Amino acid sequence: MATNETLYMRLYYDIRRRIQTGALTVGERLPSKRSLAQSMGISVNTVDAAYAQLCAEGFVVSRERSGFYVCQIDELARPEMPQEAKKEPPLSDKEAEIDFSPSGLAADLFPYATWRRLMKNAFNEYDETLLKRAPAQGDEGLRHAISSYIWNARGVRADVDSIVVGAGSSDLMQILSFILPGQWTLAVENPVYNAAYRFFEAGGHKVLPVDVDRHGIPTEPLTDLDRAVVYTTPSHQYPLGFSMPISRRIKLLNWAAAGTERYIIEDDHDSEFRYGGRPIPSLAGIDESGKVIYMGTFSRSVSPALRIGYMVLPRPLLERYRECWQGLPSAVSSFDQRVLREFMEGGHFERHLSRLRQRYKTRRDELTAALAPFGKELKIVGDNAGCHLTVKLTGGMSQKEMCGRAMDRGVKVYPVSDYFIGEMDPIYESKVLLGYGGLTSEEIKKGAALLLQAWSTT
Amino acid sequence: MATNETLYMRLYYDIRRRIQTGALTVGERLPSKRSLAQSMGISVNTVDAAYAQLCAEGFVVSRERSGFYVCQIDELARPEMPQEAKKEPPLSDKEAEIDFSPSGLAADLFPYATWRRLMKNAFNEYDETLLKRAPAQGDEGLRHAISSYIWNARGVRADVDSIVVGAGSSDLMQILSFILPGQWTLAVENPVYNAAYRFFEAGGHKVLPVDVDRHGIPTEPLTDLDRAVVYTTPSHQYPLGFSMPISRRIKLLNWAAAGTERYIIEDDHDSEFRYGGRPIPSLAGIDESGKVIYMGTFSRSVSPALRIGYMVLPRPLLERYRECWQGLPSAVSSFDQRVLREFMEGGHFERHLSRLRQRYKTRRDELTAALAPFGKELKIVGDNAGCHLTVKLTGGMSQKEMCGRAMDRGVKVYPVSDYFIGEMDPIYESKVLLGYGGLTSEEIKKGAALLLQAWSTT
Repeated sequence: MATNETLYMRLYYDIRRRIQTGALTVGERLPSKRSLAQSMGISVNTVDAAYAQLCAEGFVVSRERSGFYVCQIDELARPEMPQEAKKEPPLSDKEAEIDFSPSGLAADLFPYATWRRLMKNAFNEYDETLLKRAPAQGDEGLRHAISSYIWNARGVRADVDSIVVGAGSSDLMQILSFILPGQWTLAVENPVYNAAYRFFEAGGHKVLPVDVDRHGIPTEPLTDLDRAVVYTTPSHQYPLGFSMPISRRIKLLNWAAAGTERYIIEDDHDSEFRYGGRPIPSLAGIDESGKVIYMGTFSRSVSPALRIGYMVLPRPLLERYRECWQGLPSAVSSFDQRVLREFMEGGHFERHLSRLRQRYKTRRDELTAALAPFGKELKIVGDNAGCHLTVKLTGGMSQKEMCGRAMDRGVKVYPVSDYFIGEMDPIYESKVLLGYGGLTSEEIKKGAALLLQAWSTT
Repeated sequence: MATNETLYMRLYYDIRRRIQTGALTVGERLPSKRSLAQSMGISVNTVDAAYAQLCAEGFVVSRERSGFYVCQIDELARPEMPQEAKKEPPLSDKEAEIDFSPSGLAADLFPYATWRRLMKNAFNEYDETLLKRAPAQGDEGLRHAISSYIWNARGVRADVDSIVVGAGSSDLMQILSFILPGQWTLAVENPVYNAAYRFFEAGGHKVLPVDVDRHGIPTEPLTDLDRAVVYTTPSHQYPLGFSMPISRRIKLLNWAAAGTERYIIEDDHDSEFRYGGRPIPSLAGIDESGKVIYMGTFSRSVSPALRIGYMVLPRPLLERYRECWQGLPSAVSSFDQRVLREFMEGGHFERHLSRLRQRYKTRRDELTAALAPFGKELKIVGDNAGCHLTVKLTGGMSQKEMCGRAMDRGVKVYPVSDYFIGEMDPIYESKVLLGYGGLTSEEIKKGAALLLQAWSTT
């Protein structure tokens, strides 16, 4: 039995088809509703619904006190159908038994129960702002928590109103590229871990890769640059692993202080994890000229799945941001911002960090111990911070061979050459990264033993 | 009682200060650890820790079998401190008693309990991928759910692998601006609700505002454009409220089909809410040439706080995306993606949509009824879809005056002029938006009565 609903749809489709095939021609008047209803033995309401739909979609037009007329509609171009899309390539192509991934993390330490409880508490119907669009700069409570964290942990004094929360450092780099007026130069330390410098290129700015020396990014190539931003990871150069000494830090700050349109992006990506002595003070903490854009992320300290990072904007850039970002939303889920705020305010973040630090230090110790049999054939750098070591084979084996021989034994290691913009300087040959954050003690021992076999040249 | 910890810190600070003030000069050798420990009556370990920290930060350098030497460190520039940052301006400046905001939503209908339960279920320690970085294109299960939703609701056939999930349409526009090679033209319908076209400008592309006529964006100004993308909202022009008739749709599709570097962004922002007849078919649903970038968002159907939207990329753009986006992460929280996926897969989304549709239809009916006393003095457009009406006072009162008079009575309405790029054509004078999604029946009645007073010219 046909309902009114399907009857009107059938009538609509039928007339539409007749218009599209040319059986009804442009300007032709449709039969009046009443006569059509009568001739088809259906109700006027049904015809009315079909005509209304044809009208709404623009197949016919209604002229007052006259009727419905067929509209002029061009023929639709119908070229060959494109082929099916290919599948998105997987994040890692080969499956290794033991993966020394520098982005590995200790998922088992994540406080699942706490996080679930905080989610449940945060997500309640009595909070009138919960479902609304959050302020573009981020949840104010979260910014308070970040401000107090970076002051205590990194000596960075940041007004809550100068903090911008973004969807990770990649989103923050997009925001910076957007708000810098006209063409700027982004001087990027080379090698560099963060591919987000490419947003600057796409944003019409110039990207200038500057090769690091053993103290970090040198200031000589910057001397004559203005309208320039330097991107650097002074606490822990990634991938090379060293930290920038105070002398270079001051040179860099003084370079920035010498011009009004000069800034430094300090990406303090893994400063939470430092295993010996006090943390290296941040650039932003000693900056007296308001030139440092301090950038941090919760990717490693909470989870990369969360997509939350933050930056502290110097005053002129903050004003520029306010001007440019008007009407544009934040990219960050405000649900997650609330939970993270509670996680920080409740002291859970500090406790979680200290557990992670303990774990990663243990793994670092286990890995360096397991690599000891290499003796002088393997140099280790960057073992005092983060979640990976940079190792260099002194025998001169190429990175490609190192990775290939390891993979033959089911072990994945990461060549530093992946992080270079352009050609890698041959002095970095034989260097690979060994991440230990996601591995168990057993995997580390087994992996290191396999590497000993793999890289043995005798 | 001073612990070893504080003792080493004191010693470290003391030496650091002496280096910074010049009391210890460049190249000077620090006393040997043993002699300093002896002279201060502290342990060699304490001195060792202080020297190690000075070394790590680069104040001194250690030379093997010789000792520790003070490094060359420039003086730090110390200009006047910048003033405190100003507070972020609030999202809306004036508090109105009744706010006809077009972005108002029915927060009371949100299925809080369901969402909490889904969050709890999704967030479990047995899921190994939970804490990991999600695929850049988005959670695969969510893309499946989106693909089946847009096929059923909008007739859009989208391969799961051609969908890109982003942090709302704003993030998706940034992605598009990033992946289009070289300089393209973005032809934006004018007026336009989405400020994200500005990312194209910042991305080195040209933005060309094209004034809509009563059928939407005309194709004549596009004739000679290549390397061009048209941004349009065919289902429900925002803010003007009409939908694009089939004739114009086909003209637009044929324009795109006539060149290889021509695309159309179909922002189907509020197609979920249509109150009479069937939904207007989407452009993407009738496109035979693979030229439409179909874009949708959960901002209105779930919450703008969630920051999740999606687009379907035609094959060449998908390949370009894969090429450009390598190594770059998604901006979207994968926690929220999982919950949303469960929300869709479990049928909650459909049920929620139908409740919202019911609610908004009721409010729309109440508002049009409450505005009826205006008679012919008020024309209503766009009442068949979305969550706002566009109304025009026939007496010729300016938008500014309409808003001001309403605000004097505590009622906020929104001028269409806000949505124009450049000057507004005077034919749109006297037009304002009345959003009803966030109001109660009582507020709508009261608000409409106040508008009757406010806009009465007798």
